[in-house]
Amino acid sequence: MARDRTQIMTDALQNPPVIAADIDAAARVLAPYAIRTPLLSSPALDERLGAKVFFKPEVLQRTGSFKFRGAFNKLSSIPQAARDGGVVAFSSGNHAQGVAAAARILGMRATIVMPADAPVSKRERTKGYGAEVVLYDRDREDREAIAREIAGKRGATVVPPYDDPKIIAGQGTVGREIAEDLAAMSISPDIVVAPASGGGLIAGIATAVKARFPQAAVMCAEPKGFDDHARSLRAGHREAHDANGRTICDALMALIPGEITFAINGRLLSQGVVASDAEVGTAMAFAFRELKLAVEPGGAVALAALLAGRIDVRGKTIAIVLSGGNVDADLFAKLID
Amino acid sequence: MARDRTQIMTDALQNPPVIAADIDAAARVLAPYAIRTPLLSSPALDERLGAKVFFKPEVLQRTGSFKFRGAFNKLSSIPQAARDGGVVAFSSGNHAQGVAAAARILGMRATIVMPADAPVSKRERTKGYGAEVVLYDRDREDREAIAREIAGKRGATVVPPYDDPKIIAGQGTVGREIAEDLAAMSISPDIVVAPASGGGLIAGIATAVKARFPQAAVMCAEPKGFDDHARSLRAGHREAHDANGRTICDALMALIPGEITFAINGRLLSQGVVASDAEVGTAMAFAFRELKLAVEPGGAVALAALLAGRIDVRGKTIAIVLSGGNVDADLFAKLID
Repeated sequence: MARDRTQIMTDALQNPPVIAADIDAAARVLAPYAIRTPLLSSPALDERLGAKVFFKPEVLQRTGSFKFRGAFNKLSSIPQAARDGGVVAFSSGNHAQGVAAAARILGMRATIVMPADAPVSKRERTKGYGAEVVLYDRDREDREAIAREIAGKRGATVVPPYDDPKIIAGQGTVGREIAEDLAAMSISPDIVVAPASGGGLIAGIATAVKARFPQAAVMCAEPKGFDDHARSLRAGHREAHDANGRTICDALMALIPGEITFAINGRLLSQGVVASDAEVGTAMAFAFRELKLAVEPGGAVALAALLAGRIDVRGKTIAIVLSGGNVDADLFAKLID
Repeated sequence: MARDRTQIMTDALQNPPVIAADIDAAARVLAPYAIRTPLLSSPALDERLGAKVFFKPEVLQRTGSFKFRGAFNKLSSIPQAARDGGVVAFSSGNHAQGVAAAARILGMRATIVMPADAPVSKRERTKGYGAEVVLYDRDREDREAIAREIAGKRGATVVPPYDDPKIIAGQGTVGREIAEDLAAMSISPDIVVAPASGGGLIAGIATAVKARFPQAAVMCAEPKGFDDHARSLRAGHREAHDANGRTICDALMALIPGEITFAINGRLLSQGVVASDAEVGTAMAFAFRELKLAVEPGGAVALAALLAGRIDVRGKTIAIVLSGGNVDADLFAKLID
């Protein structure tokens, strides 16, 4: 721990790494390319929770998750002179697809470093967006070293998954749209909840939502055990989780909050909540049955925490993010049945 | 056949059973209660078809299908004096849920006559909206007679599934919203496609869409074999289909177009297209994988016809309706896997 919470907070207050104006700028960059997902509600969900719940289905976003937003905003910021070198990213999932799709739109070459045991469907989807996929052995090779080597050899830009102001600002457009749509209905949210892994999405959302609704409580949701944000928020500094098993939320397994994301989240989030794998499965089945949406495990964790009663929502107005829908058919079939 | 096409056309032209103003009125009635579903698009779908495709996910509607719209508009039109008698409907599926949910909102008693072998989940959902469910034996009893008997005994109003101007006007709000959203983007549709069973949805949509975009071709989609609309449109008069088997599209099995609906559809639709059960399954899997939506077989038939190449869409602008999402988890799991 280099700096304590007071120091981080002081730095972030004086010079926040991302401000609402950065998210406004990202929104302008994304407008012609990202899908402006609707803000939906469901009488069945409201009744179940005794609350007014709005959900933002980023499953409907290009590439099936919010990750396209941050990736496209980041790639758009690469100077023309550096674009010929292309981009490189390491990811086995949604970030890979987001970067690949953004690169194709911008006419850039994309290389994605993926574990050799990544699901074939995710590899194929990433290739489908025109990216080159480089496989590595999860047990014996270092993916960041491979990415850096490719970057060095080709003059490519490494696109980090979350700890980057452009990425955070891009993801923040999710929160900006939530705030805009609620404001258009003259509704103030009491609570806003989104999933966290490295913390880029929730950092962007918190920045955008707090700019318009400072009184709203912004919370992150994590898989039980993989609760590094919840721990870090309680401790006042970045703490790793101590899970050494797995979770069905394959998109939410980052070990520790990002430095830049936590400089934002440590200041703006009120708490972190968790949901178990079983609760996530229940939420996915609920989303299928009542919301008619295909949500992946990591994308359903905020809904799962709500349905499991982890937040006192009775009588309140809540907005949650269903952040992605890239789930294999066999797992989905098993969980809803 | 009492009247030939010319006669029906002449009648309908002189005195159409539903006009755009009826749909405007229905929209005002529905505004506080129905969900205004978004008009979405998907780069993956556009790329696959080489067209600009908009889809209207009525799976997100209250009760999981468009049927709530017509039911609510119809029930709202029942005079106060007759409301104490409640309503009665016969349906094993989406109409049952639409009527039950509308009745609950309006504080009316609803009785639904359902076959004893209807899926337990549909029976439970209908009861969940507060309706009384009366079971009948599909092989030995006449559901319409049972409904009429209940209506007579209780002074209840029978709510027909499609052949009624208020029902058609309610379903027409789907088309009105499509037209409104396209107009807001300054986009004119070349083709609009929605599923047909009794023809209420497509009649309402055709009325609303043609009022704003007279040049648009409006088409209905049916399961292969259950193509009574396609046949009737070709023949110029109402013709039954001759399927004696089943289709996975349980919502689209009506034997013959409605009289009132065909007075509209015979004049406004350019053609009917079909999709096989296998093509419907492929469309449901596509919707799961690429659109992240849970669509029931009957709700996917327009998408299925498009994906199967039944309409020449290359370079065109299309709007389709995904009309419902009430599918049992086990069937859905089987079809996507």
